[in-house]
Amino acid sequence: MSQPAFAVWMAATQQRVEAALGRHLPPADSTPARLHDAMRYAALGGGKRVRPLLAFAAGELTGAPAERLETVACAVELIHAYSLVHDDLPCMDDDVLRRGRPTCHIEFDEPTALLVGDSLQTLAFELLASQPFAAPQQQLEMVALLARASGSRGMAGGQAIDLASVGRPLEQPELELMHALKTGALIRAAVLLGALAGDALAATERNALDRFAKRAGLLFQVVDDILDCTASTATLGKTAGKDEAAAKPTYVALLGLERARDYAAELRAEALAALAIFGARADRLTALADYICHRSF
Amino acid sequence: MSQPAFAVWMAATQQRVEAALGRHLPPADSTPARLHDAMRYAALGGGKRVRPLLAFAAGELTGAPAERLETVACAVELIHAYSLVHDDLPCMDDDVLRRGRPTCHIEFDEPTALLVGDSLQTLAFELLASQPFAAPQQQLEMVALLARASGSRGMAGGQAIDLASVGRPLEQPELELMHALKTGALIRAAVLLGALAGDALAATERNALDRFAKRAGLLFQVVDDILDCTASTATLGKTAGKDEAAAKPTYVALLGLERARDYAAELRAEALAALAIFGARADRLTALADYICHRSF
Repeated sequence: MSQPAFAVWMAATQQRVEAALGRHLPPADSTPARLHDAMRYAALGGGKRVRPLLAFAAGELTGAPAERLETVACAVELIHAYSLVHDDLPCMDDDVLRRGRPTCHIEFDEPTALLVGDSLQTLAFELLASQPFAAPQQQLEMVALLARASGSRGMAGGQAIDLASVGRPLEQPELELMHALKTGALIRAAVLLGALAGDALAATERNALDRFAKRAGLLFQVVDDILDCTASTATLGKTAGKDEAAAKPTYVALLGLERARDYAAELRAEALAALAIFGARADRLTALADYICHRSF
Repeated sequence: MSQPAFAVWMAATQQRVEAALGRHLPPADSTPARLHDAMRYAALGGGKRVRPLLAFAAGELTGAPAERLETVACAVELIHAYSLVHDDLPCMDDDVLRRGRPTCHIEFDEPTALLVGDSLQTLAFELLASQPFAAPQQQLEMVALLARASGSRGMAGGQAIDLASVGRPLEQPELELMHALKTGALIRAAVLLGALAGDALAATERNALDRFAKRAGLLFQVVDDILDCTASTATLGKTAGKDEAAAKPTYVALLGLERARDYAAELRAEALAALAIFGARADRLTALADYICHRSF
């Protein structure tokens, strides 16, 4: 797929997701207005929307209708947005900058930010369950998949391992488990949910897609770790260099910058190899893996 | 229903729910162990389990099988447990005592408590979606109902109104809206989910049950407000007198103690009147409304 065509698709999909999120979030003036205003602040107007893009691209493998993908993409993004709001809280990463703007608890206040995260999570599940957009069995499977990916054996569990590991050197297998949960689980869910929104895949295809999804999740995290130590705060839109300052276990800390870059290249190659089975249907997923890999260097 | 028979049923149901929660929560030694340990600490070993009891009692109206009611009751209780953990956090009510024990962030730490609340919420939805226990359409409806009841237009929204209203006098209609959301929405959901787990109700029955559920939710809150100012910390298992100290808008603050008691009696009468249509099938719901009303004075 040509670079310009991919860029056009990406921008259109990002806009589509932004508009859909805007419709699904409660209006800013509806009671309780401050909470709804803060929910919109946290979920709208920023972010690369990597997870929604992955869901849309994966949906192309199974001929999923765009309206379904929109719902699925919004649900995943709401979970992601909730996790950012809670991760930024003073008792967690204590960060003041996110997507180039004050974090939610800075712009509003701490209790509101707590409720924003709680409510964005709830809204993700409400969205997947409250309106019929696929077969009930399919929607139920989506709720289960998203819940498993975000809970204590998924994203939140990865965050807990991360907390416990600060200042304590982690070996690569431990580090990979942490990231497989913290970042990987939701990226994987985005890919699988996108595919689930269309026709069923054959078992071999499903396995190949899952292999891609896992590699892409890890790739995303390795690149994130590299960016944290090489990019500026202005470029990132969030505070740079925080990982090192907090003695966080990162791939850069573990492998050094050069080997972390090699590892990213390796993961990218493995991710793309997994997509071979799909031929040209996977062109957008391929382009996305490249985008994830090259957003840094 | 005789008082001893009701007491026996209540104890058996509480034990059943406790055991089911114990099975549904991740084992305390599974990774991440500290998070799972803290989730079990927060959700097990205490509480009157009023919402599960309501779900079980409402299930008797529709012949719902006990295993389904168990799942539904656990899901509601997990949402309740998550809300308590987050409400007790320093940035919210900053409470150190709950169910006669240190609150989760005191026993563990603040970031862990944040993740505990997040993960208990996720687990509630995972539970309703990940295993088939009713028709897919029915389970999906349960997810939607529970999500609506707990999100920003339900429980979390009520908490946001509560936050905004501290130190600012509320009129009774505003106070009722706040409580209809903060406490009422989840109590109502418990009743409706219990009924949903069985055969469909006729429209008039559904409306009557909903009327009961709303009155019972309000009754619960009025009694809670009365208890906060009349009972001791030892009796409550949580810090007494916090509402007044925090200048919280309560029914007692609004109406005075005597009129708050009259109002509770009135709500009880209305709740019971709504159940008339069900005859003896509603005996347990009736007994529960009495229990909610009389746990105080």
